[in-house]
Amino acid sequence: MTKKIAIYGKGGIGKSTIVANIAASYSQEYNVLVIGCDPKADTTRTLYGSRIPTVLSILRENKEPHPEEVVYRGYNNISCVESGGPEPGVGCAGRGVIVAMNLLERLGVFEESFDIIIYDVLGDVVCGGFAVPLREEFADEVYIVTSGEYMSLYAANNIAKGIKKLKSRLGGIICNCKGIRDEAKIVGSFAERIGSKVIGVIPRSELVPKSEIEAMTVIEKFPNSKQAMVYHELAGRIYENKDFTVPEPLAMDEFEEFFKELKNGSF
Amino acid sequence: MTKKIAIYGKGGIGKSTIVANIAASYSQEYNVLVIGCDPKADTTRTLYGSRIPTVLSILRENKEPHPEEVVYRGYNNISCVESGGPEPGVGCAGRGVIVAMNLLERLGVFEESFDIIIYDVLGDVVCGGFAVPLREEFADEVYIVTSGEYMSLYAANNIAKGIKKLKSRLGGIICNCKGIRDEAKIVGSFAERIGSKVIGVIPRSELVPKSEIEAMTVIEKFPNSKQAMVYHELAGRIYENKDFTVPEPLAMDEFEEFFKELKNGSF
Ligand SMILES: Nc1ncnc2c1ncn2[C@@H]1O[C@H](COP(=O)(O)OP(=O)(O)O)[C@@H](O)[C@H]1O
Ligand SMILES: Nc1ncnc2c1ncn2[C@@H]1O[C@H](COP(=O)(O)OP(=O)(O)O)[C@@H](O)[C@H]1O
Ligand code: SF4
Ligand code: SF4
Ligand SMILES: [Mg+2]
Ligand SMILES: [Mg+2]
Repeated sequence: MTKKIAIYGKGGIGKSTIVANIAASYSQEYNVLVIGCDPKADTTRTLYGSRIPTVLSILRENKEPHPEEVVYRGYNNISCVESGGPEPGVGCAGRGVIVAMNLLERLGVFEESFDIIIYDVLGDVVCGGFAVPLREEFADEVYIVTSGEYMSLYAANNIAKGIKKLKSRLGGIICNCKGIRDEAKIVGSFAERIGSKVIGVIPRSELVPKSEIEAMTVIEKFPNSKQAMVYHELAGRIYENKDFTVPEPLAMDEFEEFFKELKNGSF
Repeated sequence: MTKKIAIYGKGGIGKSTIVANIAASYSQEYNVLVIGCDPKADTTRTLYGSRIPTVLSILRENKEPHPEEVVYRGYNNISCVESGGPEPGVGCAGRGVIVAMNLLERLGVFEESFDIIIYDVLGDVVCGGFAVPLREEFADEVYIVTSGEYMSLYAANNIAKGIKKLKSRLGGIICNCKGIRDEAKIVGSFAERIGSKVIGVIPRSELVPKSEIEAMTVIEKFPNSKQAMVYHELAGRIYENKDFTVPEPLAMDEFEEFFKELKNGSF
């Protein structure tokens, strides 16, 4: 059986770094497919070694591409796809995701025997398009990446609303630290409030930008580092996870109340 | 003649704070309409004193609302509208903007003699919906809010792509400081690269959250503060501005090259 995971979070929160590193971890044992669903289209850059063409850009040139033109093989033979987006100002950013999914299905990509499929999805705007990977045909379990900052918790809460709406299953919250005081506690208290748990805490580390500059994951560039272990551990915990919930997101006023309490340190 | 301004920027960058404060500044002399085009729907909170119902939520109850049910009068009689968004997970976030604009036109709201109309628009995803205020029927001039951080410059560059695509006019970049070293210089160098200029630099200030907690603008709460002067000055510079350009946004690889140079301090 294929394990299908969607990782959501605000733009810039660290989704791609996490997705690429856990994919690198899984690749030591499993056959992995990574699908970047963010118009930024750089999820797979540290796996492939450079940016790959996106489904949307490929389709602009050729309506019937072959699977090899869409799926690129990166580090440890990880299969890499990027949905891409339309030109800013016209069309629907989320439609890139819809179009990409349809093409992958048509090309039979999902029929290859992957052990793990990981979606990396932009969660700033959880509209019809970006919500597609929440549907159960695509991902069985969803994880949300957040820091302790207002906007990333706000996005996390919106993602939780989307998950509830589409009756998906939330596997947990990943805290990617931005360096705020009591950050893991803040994220833990948010997770609890929406009926979930923190499944991993990723410290900030200089090794992340250092590997990124060379278009590598931390696991490839610094395999014996503590930070690499953090990603291996997270990968393991997600793989073993059996505890899923339909989240209870906060209403807007509850969210603001919650955040005010956090700032006053009363949690 | 009505001056029609759209303020774009990444979520959380400080758009609403700027829009509400310059609206408060203009309101001392002019008749002002503020239209919040962000699903967060809190642009007008510091002007009205609390959140107002959004166009989308009003329309869910009543297909033919009166103008008074949609336009709320806030501080100094500023007219306040919030487009709102659909429930996360279903529908199009940007369509809220389209629906709101259509309703305001149908209700004849734009026919009232406003001196200034200000749109506050989410620029994380510059798709068909969120790009509507870029069209010339709505806004004549666009300003982009950014800090010196990667993701907010990345969003700013995407907004510039949307502006170019729709042949709008960029009036300048507003630097809302996050406290990065050489921040105004970084933003200045980005502005120059895309063929624009910095029209204002807003320092971080404790007075911003302090007024926000009481649902007031800085101009209302601390009228004689330095920060209030900063917003008055920005309002003045935007009002006087005659210098508009169609921006030349950076391609993705140019953008990354540019940001790498910034980090190396070579600008
Ligand atoms: N744990 C971390 N420590 C230090 N920097 C990080 C960490 N996680 C992410 N980053 C940095 O943050 C930026 C955004 O990360 P990225 O994974 O691209 O975010 P997203 O995919 O959510 O947009 C990158 O420049 C990355 O190097
Ligand atoms: N100049 C500033 N100094 C301090 N805090 C600021 C400043 N500008 C904005 N903020 C804070 O940043 C947060 C986001 O600002 P907001 O205007 O709501 O952003 P946006 O409308 O772009 O989402 C708010 O909590 C606000 O108090
Ligand atoms: S469904 Fe989402 S991605 Fe598509 S146009 Fe609407 S907001 Fe944009
Ligand atoms: S569905 Fe979303 S991405 Fe598409 S046009 Fe609407 S707002 Fe934009
Ligand atoms: Mg990413
Ligand atoms: Mg806002």
